[in-house]
Amino acid sequence: MNNFEFKNPTKIIFGKDTIEKVNQEIPENAKVLLLYGGGSIKKNGIYEQVKTALADVDVTEFGGIPANPEYATLIKALKVIKDEKITFLLAVGGGSVIDGTKFLSAAAVYDGDTPWDILTENVRTEKGMPFGTVLTLPATGSEMNSGAVITRAETKEKLAMGGPGLFPEFSILDPQVITSIPKRQLANGLTDAFTHVLEQYMTYPIGALLQDRFAESILQTLIEVAPTVLKDPTDYKAASNFMWSCTMALNGLIQKGVPTDWAVHAMGHELTALFGIDHARTLAVIAPSHYKFNFESKKEKLAQYAERVWKITEGSTDDKAYEAIVKTEAFFRELGIDTKLSEYTKDYEGTAEKISERFINRGWTKLGEHKSLTPENVEKIVKMAY
Amino acid sequence: MNNFEFKNPTKIIFGKDTIEKVNQEIPENAKVLLLYGGGSIKKNGIYEQVKTALADVDVTEFGGIPANPEYATLIKALKVIKDEKITFLLAVGGGSVIDGTKFLSAAAVYDGDTPWDILTENVRTEKGMPFGTVLTLPATGSEMNSGAVITRAETKEKLAMGGPGLFPEFSILDPQVITSIPKRQLANGLTDAFTHVLEQYMTYPIGALLQDRFAESILQTLIEVAPTVLKDPTDYKAASNFMWSCTMALNGLIQKGVPTDWAVHAMGHELTALFGIDHARTLAVIAPSHYKFNFESKKEKLAQYAERVWKITEGSTDDKAYEAIVKTEAFFRELGIDTKLSEYTKDYEGTAEKISERFINRGWTKLGEHKSLTPENVEKIVKMAY
Repeated sequence: MNNFEFKNPTKIIFGKDTIEKVNQEIPENAKVLLLYGGGSIKKNGIYEQVKTALADVDVTEFGGIPANPEYATLIKALKVIKDEKITFLLAVGGGSVIDGTKFLSAAAVYDGDTPWDILTENVRTEKGMPFGTVLTLPATGSEMNSGAVITRAETKEKLAMGGPGLFPEFSILDPQVITSIPKRQLANGLTDAFTHVLEQYMTYPIGALLQDRFAESILQTLIEVAPTVLKDPTDYKAASNFMWSCTMALNGLIQKGVPTDWAVHAMGHELTALFGIDHARTLAVIAPSHYKFNFESKKEKLAQYAERVWKITEGSTDDKAYEAIVKTEAFFRELGIDTKLSEYTKDYEGTAEKISERFINRGWTKLGEHKSLTPENVEKIVKMAY
Repeated sequence: MNNFEFKNPTKIIFGKDTIEKVNQEIPENAKVLLLYGGGSIKKNGIYEQVKTALADVDVTEFGGIPANPEYATLIKALKVIKDEKITFLLAVGGGSVIDGTKFLSAAAVYDGDTPWDILTENVRTEKGMPFGTVLTLPATGSEMNSGAVITRAETKEKLAMGGPGLFPEFSILDPQVITSIPKRQLANGLTDAFTHVLEQYMTYPIGALLQDRFAESILQTLIEVAPTVLKDPTDYKAASNFMWSCTMALNGLIQKGVPTDWAVHAMGHELTALFGIDHARTLAVIAPSHYKFNFESKKEKLAQYAERVWKITEGSTDDKAYEAIVKTEAFFRELGIDTKLSEYTKDYEGTAEKISERFINRGWTKLGEHKSLTPENVEKIVKMAY
């Protein structure tokens, strides 16, 4: 097991009818900016629940944060924060709204030349403007971590940011919100959380027995609840386990003391930036090819995953490892998620070269848990995913 | 799954040679009281490591905190805190030293008549004097939770306390410390952590699929590493998984959203108070009888535990559930832990009646996850454990 440090101060408020508690968590005399996305919260009743709970609070609103939160939109929200002397941010939404809010939390206190630096110069935020979240879409885990990914449309870039000052003060997780989420987005959420676990688990054995089992626990639970979540989102048992699994998949716990990969995300982000494919779907496109390409270095963990998660007990290590990749791809497809780039765009030729070139330009020449994945390898993996 | 709230702000610094980092975690200009136990840290080198790291810090010392931290001793430490105008506490020890430090953290800021109230009147500490820990004995999980148990020798009582203000600011966990721990205490630590998980898991199914799997993950890991921990404490893989499992067993995570029992601890504490039996050993004495007595209400979870943790796949639910109790008791005995009260004392007659009477006097008439365990039941369970 590697040495590690772990601190996650976010307060989770989980369960039925918990949105009404948001009022108790807002600091006294706060000037709140309520941030949300495309307006689905106005149709599903969550907006009303939040507004009712905040009846006595000074609230300004900023809606319209798009999926893959867009820099230009966020800069408009930043102006509202400054103009209205906002002191507390409240994200009501999924990972995109929460990630956008994290960028604003950092940008509101940043005193450099331009907030764009936060993304391009890896500025680590030690203390941002405090914020809380009401989660409306389980998927990214952003509600209990300190990272975010921001998109800039004009340059077709997706860039990561973070820092210990960007944990939400609180996050309210009411699993009942999933009843109004379109099936497509539920499938995305399941795929996203599943792949988050794989990125932190599908590497090589390092004697972190407990972390491995925790990771496998999340994978097994997602597999167990996925059919019910899609078929009947009013099933509270499935909904609540889905929601808590998504949070635990990326709140830092399972990555502590172990090597992590994250190359699937690095490649996947480019497919979103280039083609606008949903984030989760890009992961399902890349992951199977990535694991096939890196089979030799990952096969021990692939075989362990085969045995413990998919209950594949027959065959050699290689057999089990290969079968695990097949099962993973089949799982995504059962969720209704296509796993080949050509199923999303006819315009895929040249994508591998383009992504490889971008990685070279950014100096991303050593990806993966061994820091050995070159842009040349990336090109091959993306081609395998066509 | 039940509704829950979860917040655990303790910073964990885990791994080899991490004790030297303690200096970075102490607030500037702090007046530190270093608290420790019977002096084993002076023999195993940990005291030296801490003192070297704190060379530039204003440190006062208070040693001699006994196992089952004693109220009278702690009151002497409280005087030192006041006399020396201490601002930060540093516990270097196992669960007893850390629990004692939590009492002091609460007592240092308590403004009621006597600090004894904190224990008898369930005073919840919202903000205590800040403290950190250097863990020298994996077992209790106290390094990452906000609870403590304090003993008063004159009245032979063990009483619990806690509150959100009693999380350590930081805890340093260097698994190498176990190389100098006597085998007897390692066996206690394994048993203690194992039983902590059982108290939060061995109840009834409530659809908390992920929490169940996390609990099973800790149990499986403890079972896997136990023989190596006892045979070769220098084995870092075993040591690190043992240490992290003990912390995760009682840092709040696995109890969220599920019913919990804790009746084994309630009864076990009395055996320590009455006979001075090591805490962990009292749990191993009580647990098998408790699960046999409450077989009907716990058998579903007992059978799940049998299947998933002990890989017992044959037989009926009752068969598997019963076999799981047998396996559990055998596991404790393999660790060298006696599981019958008569193996610890010849003076056991009347113990069951005495404990039952104490529970009546304290109004503890409804224990366990169903709040249905009466003092009469307690009497029977303790008798079964003779």
